Amino acid sequence: MNRKMVLYMVGRILWIEALLLLLPAIVSIIYAEWTVLLSFLGTAAVAFTLGLVLLLTGKTSDRSIFAREGFAIVALAWILLSAVGALPFFISREIPSYIDAFFETVSGFTTTGASILTNVEAMSHGLLFWRSFTHWVGGMGVLVFVMAIFPSESGRSIHIMRAEVPGPVVGKLVPKIRETAKILYLIYIGMTTLLILFLLCGKMPLFDSVLHAFGAAGTGGFGIKADSLAGYSPYLQSVITIFMFLFGINFNLYYLILLGRLRSVLKSGELWFYISIVFVAIISVTINIIPLYATLSEAIRHSSFQVVSIATTSGFATTDFNLWPGFSKMILVVLMFIGGCAGSTAGGIKVSRVLLTIKMIRRDLKRMLHPRSVGVVKMEGKKVDDATLSGVNGYLLTYFLLFFVLLLLLSLEPFSFETIFTAAAACFNNVGPGLGAVGPMANYTGFSDPATLLLSFAMLFGRLEIFPLLLALSPSTWLKK
Amino acid sequence: MNRKMVLYMVGRILWIEALLLLLPAIVSIIYAEWTVLLSFLGTAAVAFTLGLVLLLTGKTSDRSIFAREGFAIVALAWILLSAVGALPFFISREIPSYIDAFFETVSGFTTTGASILTNVEAMSHGLLFWRSFTHWVGGMGVLVFVMAIFPSESGRSIHIMRAEVPGPVVGKLVPKIRETAKILYLIYIGMTTLLILFLLCGKMPLFDSVLHAFGAAGTGGFGIKADSLAGYSPYLQSVITIFMFLFGINFNLYYLILLGRLRSVLKSGELWFYISIVFVAIISVTINIIPLYATLSEAIRHSSFQVVSIATTSGFATTDFNLWPGFSKMILVVLMFIGGCAGSTAGGIKVSRVLLTIKMIRRDLKRMLHPRSVGVVKMEGKKVDDATLSGVNGYLLTYFLLFFVLLLLLSLEPFSFETIFTAAAACFNNVGPGLGAVGPMANYTGFSDPATLLLSFAMLFGRLEIFPLLLALSPSTWLKK
Repeated sequence: MNRKMVLYMVGRILWIEALLLLLPAIVSIIYAEWTVLLSFLGTAAVAFTLGLVLLLTGKTSDRSIFAREGFAIVALAWILLSAVGALPFFISREIPSYIDAFFETVSGFTTTGASILTNVEAMSHGLLFWRSFTHWVGGMGVLVFVMAIFPSESGRSIHIMRAEVPGPVVGKLVPKIRETAKILYLIYIGMTTLLILFLLCGKMPLFDSVLHAFGAAGTGGFGIKADSLAGYSPYLQSVITIFMFLFGINFNLYYLILLGRLRSVLKSGELWFYISIVFVAIISVTINIIPLYATLSEAIRHSSFQVVSIATTSGFATTDFNLWPGFSKMILVVLMFIGGCAGSTAGGIKVSRVLLTIKMIRRDLKRMLHPRSVGVVKMEGKKVDDATLSGVNGYLLTYFLLFFVLLLLLSLEPFSFETIFTAAAACFNNVGPGLGAVGPMANYTGFSDPATLLLSFAMLFGRLEIFPLLLALSPSTWLKK
Repeated sequence: MNRKMVLYMVGRILWIEALLLLLPAIVSIIYAEWTVLLSFLGTAAVAFTLGLVLLLTGKTSDRSIFAREGFAIVALAWILLSAVGALPFFISREIPSYIDAFFETVSGFTTTGASILTNVEAMSHGLLFWRSFTHWVGGMGVLVFVMAIFPSESGRSIHIMRAEVPGPVVGKLVPKIRETAKILYLIYIGMTTLLILFLLCGKMPLFDSVLHAFGAAGTGGFGIKADSLAGYSPYLQSVITIFMFLFGINFNLYYLILLGRLRSVLKSGELWFYISIVFVAIISVTINIIPLYATLSEAIRHSSFQVVSIATTSGFATTDFNLWPGFSKMILVVLMFIGGCAGSTAGGIKVSRVLLTIKMIRRDLKRMLHPRSVGVVKMEGKKVDDATLSGVNGYLLTYFLLFFVLLLLLSLEPFSFETIFTAAAACFNNVGPGLGAVGPMANYTGFSDPATLLLSFAMLFGRLEIFPLLLALSPSTWLKK
């Protein structure tokens, strides 16, 4: 383990955070929120100083980064980013408990959108901006951002990208990893800008537009109103529905579109499976909730918004789906687990893993009938190699194992089975709202401090897809060879 | 597919059922229950005739049984056994709805123990006997029984055994499969008899003793009192605790004990893992429920009974654990999924699969740190081959996929999330009671007919470990080459 290089990289990320904190600071100036401004500047100073210490301690001529360094950097970076990013909430006293502030910040960076705020509308503009901005930064990945703007440390930074970008396979779009990171971020920025423009056209105020665009782009879901998006016009709700859906798609496909390779895009098995899941879910929920709404079109609007919001693990709400019938709620719970496409900003198991699993099961069944058949699993037209398949298997089994552990620990809290189960599912899959006491019109404030910390780590495990954190927790990772 | 041979074997099994039905018929005579007697004799006649038709249709010189025939025989046999076995309840009008009777019988044969009876104490002795007897027959497997008593059809009957005996690997104890089946049944009969004697010593009436022994041996859990086992003495409850625990252990270990190879038994990783799970669960639950009971010993008694009852997927109850705190209830829910040891009469995922999964995850983590390490998964001292590992992977992923489908369909019923989730878990894992409206002091009578059928098939899928039924549902299985 090249410990120095790990510290060096984490130090660099803290510097980036110090810079990022200047953006909400500017917002504070605009709205003349001086206390909040000070808390941003103070935090930026902390991030800068801590980063400097790490950069100096980590100075080394051996700049090699292998798999284990990649995992360690990503795990440490995300924890520190959140720990420091929580300070403005705490210093400004807008969130009096540091653990709550940590939860809120982790929820932001991991694009979960679960909140402990009981009165979000009372927050300052600066902090609301910072809160939603963490969604946007966390969506595409902080380290991917670092790679995009700094000259590549070594040819090995693919290990960092693998550890941070969701999904079973990380494809390099172009031979150079740095270029790949740049392209991804440019697409991301472009789409976010487009969304802001569409929202402005619907007469949403600029501040609201930017923040909701951050939340939708990162598939995070922090709202700035007590009733999430229920108070906005049907046009605005529809725009956000469409964009959440788009941000749930593998970004590689957008790159292919830019290259004019529309044909390859339309052949994507994951894309079609994603579309089918969302489509079937919308129809089922619509039929189920018709009696609750005045018109069919209202039912369709809420159904499609909620299905897309949960399937992409955003977590915005236009209605209290906690009051829907059991079948619709169960569909949403299942969607929480499936999540969006690999290589998108969405969380959950990911559509491609689910699809691969179904294909594996089909192959296994075939093999049982014809023991001598070879049986190949194909995805996007290519044979999937055994290492990838066993990686998906291992991931899913670890995923379910950890989920059960999470359920057990969380059940020490005095909530109903529904609340415990969906709180665990909504945090681990980076969705945000669950059902029962953590429904879309409620919040996570009722949990004890240990449970709040536990859920924070559940969000981190979910966002980083388990292994970086699991490995960082194992002492043998840190041994010097 | 050798369809004729499938019909032939199923016909033979129906004849066995006709014979088995004579046992409860005798009980009816003893208790002078003439209507019930007639319904048993009538059903035996139906089973005999149907069996005869199948035997005649299936007469063939090609007696080969391969994997697909094995799956088909087991799937068809279990469905038909239950369909016919439900008739006595229906004909006697003690269960007026045939679907309910089918549910109750499937629940019996699959050793689930979920019941739709609202007043079990009003049932006739004959039907109570038949109900518990199905547990005993289903526990070790009907086809294993057939193999034990008939001369082997061909060297291929291992395929039937593989399809019926729970667990990832079916070990032949002795080279001849028929001898293996015989040994298993002799151990089973011996232990059941021993349990009956212990219960009689505790002054439990003979009828109650035999029926509870059937339920404990098959890890089924049908009780004959409205409050399950709550009304019996602490001695009797403790005896049943110990025996449920014993019936949850891999029967191969008992054979090793008979051979005097105690050392190999004590080296069994699955056994120790099973003991550890049960031990940790008992301690955690005891600490959690102390405030609910007058003395520590009472808390320990209920805790150990309930933990063992659920971990072995029996489902007997000495107390209404539905009233326990959330943590204890969640422990029970997790135990439902884990289940007992492979090669026992218990259901669930099985301890050996859970253990193998944990070992695989540990190997994968190691590989991530040291990409060039080989990494071997060992179990019971031997290297586990890749086919077995990928079999376990495939099984678990199919298991969770089906569980989610089951949840979705079941959520159309007007019950709470807790009730739906635990009803699905309790039926799919062959436990019996769940929480909420299907708690240990409640029953499954509130479900609609389609849901009752769905849960019946969930029990069959669980007992036969998914693949036989899944393959039997696929048309390509039935094609002639």
